[in-house]
Amino acid sequence: MLNFESDYNNGAHPLVLQHLIQTNDTQSLTYGFDIWSQQAKQKIKQVCQSDNLDIYFLCGGTQTNATVIDACLRNYQAVISVDTGHIAVHEAGAIEASGHKVITLPSHDGKMDIEDLKEFFYAFDNDESKDHTAQPGMVYLTFPTELGTLYSKKEIEDIYSLCKSRKLTLFIDGARLGYGLMSENCDFDIAFLKDNCDVFYIGGTKTGALCGEAVVFCDKNKTPECFFSIIKRHGALLAKSRLTGVQFDALFTDNLYFNIAKNAIDKAKELKSILQQAGFEFYLNSPTNQQFVIIPNEKVKELEKQVIFTHWFAYDKKSTVCRFVTSWATTQKEIDELRKILLK
Amino acid sequence: MLNFESDYNNGAHPLVLQHLIQTNDTQSLTYGFDIWSQQAKQKIKQVCQSDNLDIYFLCGGTQTNATVIDACLRNYQAVISVDTGHIAVHEAGAIEASGHKVITLPSHDGKMDIEDLKEFFYAFDNDESKDHTAQPGMVYLTFPTELGTLYSKKEIEDIYSLCKSRKLTLFIDGARLGYGLMSENCDFDIAFLKDNCDVFYIGGTKTGALCGEAVVFCDKNKTPECFFSIIKRHGALLAKSRLTGVQFDALFTDNLYFNIAKNAIDKAKELKSILQQAGFEFYLNSPTNQQFVIIPNEKVKELEKQVIFTHWFAYDKKSTVCRFVTSWATTQKEIDELRKILLK
Amino acid sequence: MLNFESDYNNGAHPLVLQHLIQTNDTQSLTYGFDIWSQQAKQKIKQVCQSDNLDIYFLCGGTQTNATVIDACLRNYQAVISVDTGHIAVHEAGAIEASGHKVITLPSHDGKMDIEDLKEFFYAFDNDESKDHTAQPGMVYLTFPTELGTLYSKKEIEDIYSLCKSRKLTLFIDGARLGYGLMSENCDFDIAFLKDNCDVFYIGGTKTGALCGEAVVFCDKNKTPECFFSIIKRHGALLAKSRLTGVQFDALFTDNLYFNIAKNAIDKAKELKSILQQAGFEFYLNSPTNQQFVIIPNEKVKELEKQVIFTHWFAYDKKSTVCRFVTSWATTQKEIDELRKILLK
Amino acid sequence: MLNFESDYNNGAHPLVLQHLIQTNDTQSLTYGFDIWSQQAKQKIKQVCQSDNLDIYFLCGGTQTNATVIDACLRNYQAVISVDTGHIAVHEAGAIEASGHKVITLPSHDGKMDIEDLKEFFYAFDNDESKDHTAQPGMVYLTFPTELGTLYSKKEIEDIYSLCKSRKLTLFIDGARLGYGLMSENCDFDIAFLKDNCDVFYIGGTKTGALCGEAVVFCDKNKTPECFFSIIKRHGALLAKSRLTGVQFDALFTDNLYFNIAKNAIDKAKELKSILQQAGFEFYLNSPTNQQFVIIPNEKVKELEKQVIFTHWFAYDKKSTVCRFVTSWATTQKEIDELRKILLK
Repeated sequence: MLNFESDYNNGAHPLVLQHLIQTNDTQSLTYGFDIWSQQAKQKIKQVCQSDNLDIYFLCGGTQTNATVIDACLRNYQAVISVDTGHIAVHEAGAIEASGHKVITLPSHDGKMDIEDLKEFFYAFDNDESKDHTAQPGMVYLTFPTELGTLYSKKEIEDIYSLCKSRKLTLFIDGARLGYGLMSENCDFDIAFLKDNCDVFYIGGTKTGALCGEAVVFCDKNKTPECFFSIIKRHGALLAKSRLTGVQFDALFTDNLYFNIAKNAIDKAKELKSILQQAGFEFYLNSPTNQQFVIIPNEKVKELEKQVIFTHWFAYDKKSTVCRFVTSWATTQKEIDELRKILLK
Repeated sequence: MLNFESDYNNGAHPLVLQHLIQTNDTQSLTYGFDIWSQQAKQKIKQVCQSDNLDIYFLCGGTQTNATVIDACLRNYQAVISVDTGHIAVHEAGAIEASGHKVITLPSHDGKMDIEDLKEFFYAFDNDESKDHTAQPGMVYLTFPTELGTLYSKKEIEDIYSLCKSRKLTLFIDGARLGYGLMSENCDFDIAFLKDNCDVFYIGGTKTGALCGEAVVFCDKNKTPECFFSIIKRHGALLAKSRLTGVQFDALFTDNLYFNIAKNAIDKAKELKSILQQAGFEFYLNSPTNQQFVIIPNEKVKELEKQVIFTHWFAYDKKSTVCRFVTSWATTQKEIDELRKILLK
Repeated sequence: MLNFESDYNNGAHPLVLQHLIQTNDTQSLTYGFDIWSQQAKQKIKQVCQSDNLDIYFLCGGTQTNATVIDACLRNYQAVISVDTGHIAVHEAGAIEASGHKVITLPSHDGKMDIEDLKEFFYAFDNDESKDHTAQPGMVYLTFPTELGTLYSKKEIEDIYSLCKSRKLTLFIDGARLGYGLMSENCDFDIAFLKDNCDVFYIGGTKTGALCGEAVVFCDKNKTPECFFSIIKRHGALLAKSRLTGVQFDALFTDNLYFNIAKNAIDKAKELKSILQQAGFEFYLNSPTNQQFVIIPNEKVKELEKQVIFTHWFAYDKKSTVCRFVTSWATTQKEIDELRKILLK
Repeated sequence: MLNFESDYNNGAHPLVLQHLIQTNDTQSLTYGFDIWSQQAKQKIKQVCQSDNLDIYFLCGGTQTNATVIDACLRNYQAVISVDTGHIAVHEAGAIEASGHKVITLPSHDGKMDIEDLKEFFYAFDNDESKDHTAQPGMVYLTFPTELGTLYSKKEIEDIYSLCKSRKLTLFIDGARLGYGLMSENCDFDIAFLKDNCDVFYIGGTKTGALCGEAVVFCDKNKTPECFFSIIKRHGALLAKSRLTGVQFDALFTDNLYFNIAKNAIDKAKELKSILQQAGFEFYLNSPTNQQFVIIPNEKVKELEKQVIFTHWFAYDKKSTVCRFVTSWATTQKEIDELRKILLK
């Protein structure tokens, strides 16, 4: 059946798979010391235009968020996220499992508004009981957001500036980083990120890999102490680190990561146009590979006979916000089939 | 200076102190096995009209909340509270410190609305990703709330009924329980509580004791296994348990706990009338010992020269929500002095 | 260089890789619902001769141990392990990170002696302060142990019997399970295990997979509640679960897992003989794929020029306990080369 | 019945109680800001001969250990203790509850031997897998130890010197500090401590108070950040901090704390002599208020009819190690009665 459910329902990109095949018979060091992990780190440094980065490969978004947040925060510190943030809702309490509160601010189409952040700190600073509350230590953003929206260069710069002035770590969750950076609406590249936050990650699972996320600490002198042991303590250390090393080595060879992310964006534009022509109301305007439309429930049932997509949430008693996702693997044929179904 | 800042800025009630004095020279068993703890438990059972209770004495509200919540929940479970709940804001992340997420619902003058709870569970049940979210295991209410408001008999019955149908523990934080039960607006007594929740606590710190909260499990066969060890693990086990035992023994002799709570309510009525006559707008209508009024900032400054009270939060740029609190110890003289100051 | 350092320095077994290739272009469900995960579970049930199992695929030994232990224990419970157990030393505190103490008993060549366990419980039962100690909730064994040794059928039966009588969960860490089961010294098969513990895992990382461990709950009616959410909370849920599903599907097709484990055992026998002929003293007698010999430090340095192996620990000032490991991938050529080097 | 069971089975010292009575009617600030807490801190600084201390009052030994250790360690760090240390056995897993492993070294009559510590670090430094183990961040000593023994000045200096060279925090648990310092075998005073560790606590519960331990950070510039919030997060913040403030104010007035500790030591000397004359074998030689003797089980049963004491553990099948404890409250009459019973 036609499937627009997620960007992680395919196998690996052929070039990623090919690299796994070609390297399979070579013995290697383990726990991150294999040659391919080293190469991949080098290539990421090049594309980020900095040698001052410290890079680690982990396996899955929740694991990465939990490990990085726990590593950057002191035991008693909390992380600030919008209420639609992945860590706030869809990680089954993984952040709290390490003892850290997630403080939530209102989501604006998935984004954090710096005015809300300022207001939070104004109230915090003026709260006579602030020492009785969880102490904020980090701001967590997703790029693109869980709703497919993007921060502008200026928005990130401003938030980072605020973070620095308050000694907060700025962490950017890039589970779909490629899809954000390749959007026409994005006004910066990956090199910008390394100068405008403390740590971010480059999602591989949703962009061509079988698994793997590359954590990038933007200043290698500020990597949390004992981060290797912290990874291990979080059960996030792969013995056969070649698995992630080889995949990221392939993804960052010849711009593959960005090229295949671009495919999802191109297909999403067509998808958007089809959904529009089909007369669906958009829940919000997403410039990336996730599109959210409000569909009457009867129509949902009918459509589900031919296409797989996600019920995001009940918009009201009569209609549902549904998500359609393209990916690096979405083909023109799939788009054309959807067009036929929706615009017949 | 005249002090309406809190209900815990006095020493112990004279009869509590007297019992400490009278028992001081007697040697005792420790860790909860002293004779006074046993007597106090017996007296609480009597006032609750049940022999089926299991009672423990702890020391302070945050400690009690953290210990009870952690004991009742499985590692991965979350607790539901209104966003003004003590555990949600003023416990410095103590609940998350044990790994439990606090899921927040909107506060209605400090209270949880069962409709919000139903809506939450409607969304939860219909969420395709619900297994990716923290699993709710408990509902947490405060009685009276942090804003001095009260649940009615029916409201608690309804919420408890919902909890039972979903196998959620209902826990009622009674840091100021006496003040709630003694309010004219309260339509039930303490015996009602033991039938309408799974566990509650009777706050001593704010009602005549130097320290101490009595945790009451409403069905002794359902006390969390190894609760004694859990108390110890939370650093909440007093070696000299006589300290809390003796105090609760005094508080539950001859109805002392309720009688002195009544004083706070009587004085609060006068306080309320004075604040009204002084022309202050009430932030909300509280029938208990905490009163919240909106005061222009200039007036706040002027008043502070003669009275201590709490800045609750900035209402707007020009005025502040201020809290005035009466207690078991508030004297007629203090009320009269405040009247003089405000209504001169 | 000749490498006997570990059993996870190779890629995937060719048949595992081939299955990844063949399935790569098929879209799939995610988070464990993919068809290959389903098939693999079915095949594992067959080899275990039971339909009453509940099986999950995780990624790495520490992650699996931390997730399973946390899921099976109540918040306040501890796990009992020998002091050489992986969870006791080499998991960077991952078990404690979830709040659980690891209680250690002395290791007997890596094994737990039931007499020590009985003695522990005798002391525990007779300890007037036992409620002040961490409450044991699980016994953790490794099979084979970290030192390559094996429990007999009877030893496991006896320990399990003791566990059941005390309501302790018995968890067997099978990071190298295949190598244990294929040893000539092993007097049971995998089907025996499912009747003689509560949960065990089948290690894939060290036996032909790129990653992956199969957790087997031996009675599906006793799987910890919400185990799926617990996996997520531990950051252990693969979005593209096909990665582990496909690999275990291949490993449990045509007995592959056991056949390739057998190779490691066969090669280990040759290795053992070579080490013996070379005149090295064995640290202990291991019937599996890890061999430990005491080598004079000068000889260690000399050997290291030609072979990679592990320094286990300093035996004394003059010699080192060294580990040589064979694996599913060890070739006759590698053995012959080592023979040449050691017995020239 | 004659009671030598513990040093916390009495009420408060009369002068402590008197101070509670005298201050009872005075209103106060809360959460540590009350005047008596301030005075008590000042007096402790004087006796320690330093103004550079940072002092906090908590409530109970386990609570204090858990809070201080969690505050001083990073999330992933472990604390080193002897295997008889209170945190290692008798805190129901409170240290692990905050995520920290307790690494144990062998006890030498309750004491840590610096040679064991050096050996541990030698092995750690030479362990190729050290990054896979819990990272030591603190050394925990008790003074006197759980077995009543004492470290010499030189022993503490040497351990502290080792700690500083490895950037480990040295924390000394002084649950019975007064009894250690007043022993004739102690070759230093409390002022020495503040120069020879990073943080220690002065136990009040066992020395004249109803509850209360004074945590002393030896360099106020190195108090863990946000320690106030950390106390709150651990449920260890007393609202009515006057309770501990008043008690420590009394204890540190006119040398009361040390004078009453001295009584326990004087009585212990008589106790020791009686036990010796009664022909009991000592389990070890304790120069403080806890005495451990090996008593045949029949004799234990007989004695228990007249005296309460503690069964420490079964020495062998025929005899038990029993603990007799004196305290600040032990009277000459009690000693004389015991003499009559044992030496009749």
